[in-house]
Amino acid sequence: MIYFDNSATTAIYPEALRTYTDVATKMMGNPSSLHNLGTTATRLLDASRRQIAELLGVGQGEIFFTSGGTEGDNWVLKGVAFEKRIYGNHIIVSSIEHPAVKNTAEWLTTQGFEVDFAPVTAEGFVDVPALAGLIRDETILVSVMAVNNEIGSIQPLREIAELLADKPTIGFHVDAVQGLNKIPNADFMLPRVDFTTFSAHKFHGPRGVGFVYIKSGKRLAPLLHGGGQENNRRSTTENLAGIAATAKALRLALTDFDVKIERVRQMKEIIFNELKKHERVILFSEMENFAPNILTFGIRGVRGEVVVHAFERHEIYISTTSACSSKKNAAASTLVAMNVHGDAATSAVRISLDASNTMTEIESFLTIFRQIYAELEKVSH
Amino acid sequence: MIYFDNSATTAIYPEALRTYTDVATKMMGNPSSLHNLGTTATRLLDASRRQIAELLGVGQGEIFFTSGGTEGDNWVLKGVAFEKRIYGNHIIVSSIEHPAVKNTAEWLTTQGFEVDFAPVTAEGFVDVPALAGLIRDETILVSVMAVNNEIGSIQPLREIAELLADKPTIGFHVDAVQGLNKIPNADFMLPRVDFTTFSAHKFHGPRGVGFVYIKSGKRLAPLLHGGGQENNRRSTTENLAGIAATAKALRLALTDFDVKIERVRQMKEIIFNELKKHERVILFSEMENFAPNILTFGIRGVRGEVVVHAFERHEIYISTTSACSSKKNAAASTLVAMNVHGDAATSAVRISLDASNTMTEIESFLTIFRQIYAELEKVSH
Ligand SMILES: Cc1ncc(COP(=O)(O)O)c(C=O)c1O
Ligand SMILES: Cc1ncc(COP(=O)(O)O)c(C=O)c1O
Repeated sequence: MIYFDNSATTAIYPEALRTYTDVATKMMGNPSSLHNLGTTATRLLDASRRQIAELLGVGQGEIFFTSGGTEGDNWVLKGVAFEKRIYGNHIIVSSIEHPAVKNTAEWLTTQGFEVDFAPVTAEGFVDVPALAGLIRDETILVSVMAVNNEIGSIQPLREIAELLADKPTIGFHVDAVQGLNKIPNADFMLPRVDFTTFSAHKFHGPRGVGFVYIKSGKRLAPLLHGGGQENNRRSTTENLAGIAATAKALRLALTDFDVKIERVRQMKEIIFNELKKHERVILFSEMENFAPNILTFGIRGVRGEVVVHAFERHEIYISTTSACSSKKNAAASTLVAMNVHGDAATSAVRISLDASNTMTEIESFLTIFRQIYAELEKVSH
Repeated sequence: MIYFDNSATTAIYPEALRTYTDVATKMMGNPSSLHNLGTTATRLLDASRRQIAELLGVGQGEIFFTSGGTEGDNWVLKGVAFEKRIYGNHIIVSSIEHPAVKNTAEWLTTQGFEVDFAPVTAEGFVDVPALAGLIRDETILVSVMAVNNEIGSIQPLREIAELLADKPTIGFHVDAVQGLNKIPNADFMLPRVDFTTFSAHKFHGPRGVGFVYIKSGKRLAPLLHGGGQENNRRSTTENLAGIAATAKALRLALTDFDVKIERVRQMKEIIFNELKKHERVILFSEMENFAPNILTFGIRGVRGEVVVHAFERHEIYISTTSACSSKKNAAASTLVAMNVHGDAATSAVRISLDASNTMTEIESFLTIFRQIYAELEKVSH
């Protein structure tokens, strides 16, 4: 099996899974408990938080655990909206955000908020001057992702940070779910960013765990009210085993980051250069300004599903852009926002690589690709 | 070690942990993926949901996975409030709900909703006639728990169901986090109930997983908007390993339920009868109409923490009522609602038993109890 669908989800590191089972077996206390089982649990919780904060270069008190990327995105958008409603009711999100941001923003319009979707260029980058034009006195939040999940475009966060530099009352949220462990932390942990969302299963951590960076002093309403955990910002009995496994996975993922990511980039480049030679291939991802692991392309006139299933017969797993939309048979919303329409849009498939992939897999993939391309050429001509 | 703090959290069943690791190791697909790794994952997800639905006697399409009890409570309260705002803005919750319900309800008052807290009797049961008196035309939701987490009182859900029988537009939510696996399912899965909240770590499942029963046809806004998982009602990449482990844990927990719970009741009764003999003991829990696993008491004039720490020195783990409030040094809010004040209220400690506890542990507990009681009597007289 060749797994090239790492943007959908990754295999948990065996070491992270071991941490999970060790903690689940040996640390039965609830961190909120007064007795020493609780104290021991709290110590591990604090250590996990500290480790993640250090890896991201932020304060320990700025990391809050969640159940994943979707919760993080919902929390920031709804939390800022409900908290700051008295100061303004206007939110700007990019038109290529993940549904966790986009659908949340859309729902907020049913609750009295106004939302603008910032357009993107034909290449899939937020149009910063256009975004600037959407800002109003009532704007309380701007949300733009670090790396787009459907084509891998790296968003111009630095320019947006500059734009927002003299507008301190506007919250700046970055969904970095596809950024962490793919591009350098410094590219999304910008000083001007107030909130950042992460998800563990995208970097070989457990599913159902994520965390949010909230800059010290920034306020937002809780999404989960209750017993007061996470410094009264996100209640529920802490998933200690999952949290410790997440810290472990992040440490492993970021070890030798530069070396690993350069290898991933080279693997992508080999595929990229080969695909380019095929007349009917449309490339939606580039090498420059795109995540080193994501390569989205289409075979003109062939629906993405057909290509996914053709590879699947050879036990090669790729995807029709985002996993979320894959079953809905719709064109990738990023491509629609880029003004790609018709059969070009519905042809898109996404390869998403990982440091665990090998050059041998790349070669096998390309052999099968040539075979599938030739077969499909016969059928659809 | 003697662990009598099972209402705070339970140890995960080894079999459930094995399911977790098996699934995490062998099923790497994202259920949303189009390829067969996704299909395999979806099948296990469906099977887990079906098993839980069958154990609760409801439809498979009525079970939705969450990250725990707190998320379930927040979802139902906020989801119903935001969805039904146009029909009414009034919510009733009991005054002894868990903070996941109470604090959520309180927050909703900052968003234009009106909340009434239904009073309880001196024994800790919702006063149903008083609750009836709070109902208005604008009432959209009534939320009352199955079993109170601080003293174990079983709430009069049948009477409330009767009260609401001819008021079909009022949603009826039951927080059954402390009910499942402690009292018969039939006692909270009443036909009139529309929404029920559960949490896996209370019945030897993993932390960070829960589920909500939503009666077919009942509407509420999602708390997590996004990619459309859980039939578009609760988005995020499914925590498949945690969900499968939850289904396994619930099946094991409910196997021989009657036998196990009768043993637990007997263990409680032995402690109950012994404590009763001690002049300075105040009993907040009874045998009748109380959960068979929870026994809350106090030693008059001795703060709860002192008692918890005295037992801890003998490696016996009990708690100052709820884990959530234990570090806040406040009287249990259930006791305050029952009009218990002063040093009676702050004396309360909670024993919460489990089928894994033994008669030998009960005997050891009582031996140590007598010793501690005698010591404290000396000190505090
Ligand atoms: C950019 C982005 N944001 C958010 C999410 C949601 O993350 P999770 O599945 O952990 O809820 C994803 C997952 O696909 C994503 O790619
Ligand atoms: C009655 C009740 N509801 C809700 C919760 C919250 O559950 P969780 O910790 O899974 O969020 C608890 C946990 O203590 C509880 O006892």
